[in-house]
Amino acid sequence: MSDFREQALKYHAEPKPGKISIEISKAAETVKDLALAYSPGVAEPVREIANNIDDVYKYTGKGNLVAVISNGTAILGLGNLGPMASKPVMEGKALLFKRFAGLDSIDIEVTHRTTEEFIDTVANIADTFGGINLEDIKSPECFEIEKELIRRCNIPVFHDDQHGTAIVTAAGLLNALEIQGKDIGNAVIVCLGAGAAAIACMELLIKCGAKREHIYMLDTKGVIHTRRNDLNKYKELFANNTDKRTLEEAMEGADVFVGVSGPDALPAETLKLMADKPVIFACSNPDPEIKPELAHAERSDLIMATGRSDYPNQVNNVLCFPFIFRGALDVRAKVINDEMKLAAVQAIRAIAKEPVPQAVLTAAQVDKLQFGADYIIPKPMDPRLLSRVARAVAEAAVASGVARLPMPENYMGSEL
Amino acid sequence: MSDFREQALKYHAEPKPGKISIEISKAAETVKDLALAYSPGVAEPVREIANNIDDVYKYTGKGNLVAVISNGTAILGLGNLGPMASKPVMEGKALLFKRFAGLDSIDIEVTHRTTEEFIDTVANIADTFGGINLEDIKSPECFEIEKELIRRCNIPVFHDDQHGTAIVTAAGLLNALEIQGKDIGNAVIVCLGAGAAAIACMELLIKCGAKREHIYMLDTKGVIHTRRNDLNKYKELFANNTDKRTLEEAMEGADVFVGVSGPDALPAETLKLMADKPVIFACSNPDPEIKPELAHAERSDLIMATGRSDYPNQVNNVLCFPFIFRGALDVRAKVINDEMKLAAVQAIRAIAKEPVPQAVLTAAQVDKLQFGADYIIPKPMDPRLLSRVARAVAEAAVASGVARLPMPENYMGSEL
Repeated sequence: MSDFREQALKYHAEPKPGKISIEISKAAETVKDLALAYSPGVAEPVREIANNIDDVYKYTGKGNLVAVISNGTAILGLGNLGPMASKPVMEGKALLFKRFAGLDSIDIEVTHRTTEEFIDTVANIADTFGGINLEDIKSPECFEIEKELIRRCNIPVFHDDQHGTAIVTAAGLLNALEIQGKDIGNAVIVCLGAGAAAIACMELLIKCGAKREHIYMLDTKGVIHTRRNDLNKYKELFANNTDKRTLEEAMEGADVFVGVSGPDALPAETLKLMADKPVIFACSNPDPEIKPELAHAERSDLIMATGRSDYPNQVNNVLCFPFIFRGALDVRAKVINDEMKLAAVQAIRAIAKEPVPQAVLTAAQVDKLQFGADYIIPKPMDPRLLSRVARAVAEAAVASGVARLPMPENYMGSEL
Repeated sequence: MSDFREQALKYHAEPKPGKISIEISKAAETVKDLALAYSPGVAEPVREIANNIDDVYKYTGKGNLVAVISNGTAILGLGNLGPMASKPVMEGKALLFKRFAGLDSIDIEVTHRTTEEFIDTVANIADTFGGINLEDIKSPECFEIEKELIRRCNIPVFHDDQHGTAIVTAAGLLNALEIQGKDIGNAVIVCLGAGAAAIACMELLIKCGAKREHIYMLDTKGVIHTRRNDLNKYKELFANNTDKRTLEEAMEGADVFVGVSGPDALPAETLKLMADKPVIFACSNPDPEIKPELAHAERSDLIMATGRSDYPNQVNNVLCFPFIFRGALDVRAKVINDEMKLAAVQAIRAIAKEPVPQAVLTAAQVDKLQFGADYIIPKPMDPRLLSRVARAVAEAAVASGVARLPMPENYMGSEL
C-alpha cells in the first residue's frame, strides 16, 4: 500500500470513522437546559413556526444548513459506484462547507429506481435544509434533476459539478484571456468533453460573452455538429454547423482549449495548430488532458490551468461553492440565479488581480502570487474569498430580486 | 409573554438559531489535511467501499449517525402542524441523542402526499444513516410506516412514540406491580387512549406477561369491544369480549390504569372503583389524566407515575431511546427486535432497584431515591443508564442473532 493511500485510509478510519460530527450548540447539561431544548420548552418555537412558517429560520438551524446530496452515479473520476461508495466524498464536501464558510453541512446518499424517484425523494426532504448542493450525479440525468428540483424547492439548489466548475473555469479563463490580450467575444473555443461540467462551462462562458458558434464541443465520437443525429437535447444546443470532425480539425486556429474529459486526451502536437497566445485548461483530475511540462515545451506563449494543486493555476471548485452558498443563505435567496453566478465569477477574478495580503502568507509566497500567466486564479486558502465572493453573490441576489432578506450591514460572509 | 416562554424562544434563537451544529472531527487546516479529507485522498475509502460495502462503517460516520425523521403530523401534544413546525422538536431529539449517548444525530423533516411516498422517501435516504428514529407521526399511519421501513431498511428503525414510551412504561409498571405485590399475569388493565403509544404499551405489556383478555382499551367512543364495527385493524386486536362500555365500568376492579389520552380525562371518583393497591400511570403531558394530589387524596394505597419531572416517577422516553440506539448501533443490529426491547425494560427496572451511586448525587437526593412507591423508575440524569441499558440491548441483539458484530469487550456504551 502506498504511503499516501495508507494515510488517506487511516485519516478516515481513526480514531473514529468519518470526519464530521454533530454537536450540541446550546447549553444542555441541566434539567432546566433540557426543559428549554426539548419538552416542554420546545413547544414554544413549534407554535411560533406553526403560526408563521418563516420563523423556522429564527428558531432552528435550517438557515445555516446545506445538504450535500448524491446518488453516487458519477463519483469523482471513478464512475458509478453507488450511493454508499460516495459517502466519504459527500462527507468531505460537508467538511469543506464548514471549513471554508462556516456552514453546517450534512451528506445524504440516495438510492432510487428512476430519475423521478430521485427528484421526489430530494424534494420531499428539502424543507429540512437551507440549501441543497447536488454532487456526483451523472449526465444527462443531472440536468433534469437540477432543473426540476429548482422548480420544486423553496431553497437554493446547485449542482456543483456543473456550476461550481463553470464559475471557477470562467473566472480563470477570462483572466487568462485578458492577460493574453484576447476578447472572449472573438475567441474560438474547443471543449473536449460533453458531460455536465463541459456543458455548464460552455453555457456560462456564453453568458460571459463567448459566441456559441465559436465553440467546438467534442464527445467520444468527435466534434458535435449539426449533421449528427445521435445527440441528447443538451449536446444538441452545441451542434456546430461546421465541417470539422476531429480534435485536430477543431484545434486548428483555436484560442482556448477546455478539457473536461480524461487523462492525456490532448496530443501535444495539436497545440501547434492553435492561434497565437492560446489558453489551455486541462481540468481532468488527477491526470490532466496534457501534462503542463509537455504543453509548455510545445508552446512558450500559452497560459495553462489544471485541476492539480502542485502546478500553478488550479481550477478548484472550493473557490466557489462554500461562498456562493454562504452569500445565498445569508440573504435567504430563493435560487442561485445567473446573476449570482456571474457575480461570483467577477469576484473571484478580482481577487486574483489584487495584491495578496501579506498577513496570511510569507513574503516568498506573495512574490509568486502576482497577477500573470502563473497566477490567474486565487489560491483555495485565500481568506478574501469568503468575504468577497459571498458578498458579491448576496448583493447580486438582492439586486436581481431573489433575496428574501435585505443585504446585512457590513456583510463579510457571516459565520467565520 | 410568560418568563418560561420567553426563555424557551430565546434559547432557540440566540446567539444563533437552533441548537445543534455540524463540526469537523479530523484535522482540516492545511492543504495536506484537505488532500486527505477530499480529493485526491478521499478516492481511497471510496474504492474500498465500492469493493466491500461494509467498509462504509469503517471510513464514514454512518455507524454513529441516527436520523430523527418526522412529517409533523402529531407534534408533542400539539397535533398535526406540519413538517416545518416539527423541526425544533426533531433538533431537540437529535440533541438528546448526543447528550445522553454520544450519537451523532440529524433531523429530517419530510413533506409527502401519500403514506407510500413517505415510506419511499425515508427508505431511499436510509443508507445514509446507522439508524432511524421515527418521531411524531400520527396513528394509524405510523404502524404501517414503521413496519414497512423495518422491512425495507438494512438498519434499525424505531418509532419512539410507540416503543420508547412502551419500554419506559413497562419498566415502571412492572416495578410498581412488584411493590404492590401483584402479578402482571393476573392484573386487570385499563388503557385510556388507543393511539400509537397506547397500542404499543399494551402490546409490550402482553409480551411482559399481561393477558390480552384482561385489558380494557378505550378510545373516544368508550371501551373497545368485540361488537364494535368501527375499529381499525390495530384497535381490533384489543376488542374485548365484554359488556363493559364506559370508563367507569372498565375501572371497576381494575389493578392498573394507563392513560395516554389527555388532561384530566380520569375522574377522581373512578379510583374508588379499582381493586386494592392500584397502579396509575397518567402519562398525558404536560397535564396528566388526573393530578397526583387528587389521586393520592382519593386513595392512599396507590402508586402513581406521570410524564412530569416535578412529581415522582416520571415516565420519560429519554430513559430508553438514546441507549437502545447506542446498544443497537454498537453491535450493528439489523433491527430493534422484541428481545432488545424487553432487555431494555429489565435493565431500566434493575437500575431503579439498586442504590444510586453517591458520586453523582447529594446524600439528601440519594435518600429519596430508594426503590418504593415514589421511586419506581430511574431519573433521566442517572449515569448508569448508558452503560446498563446499552449493554443489555447489545447483548440481546447478539443473543437473538440480529447483530452483525460480536459484543465489544468490556462494553459500557462506547461514545461517552
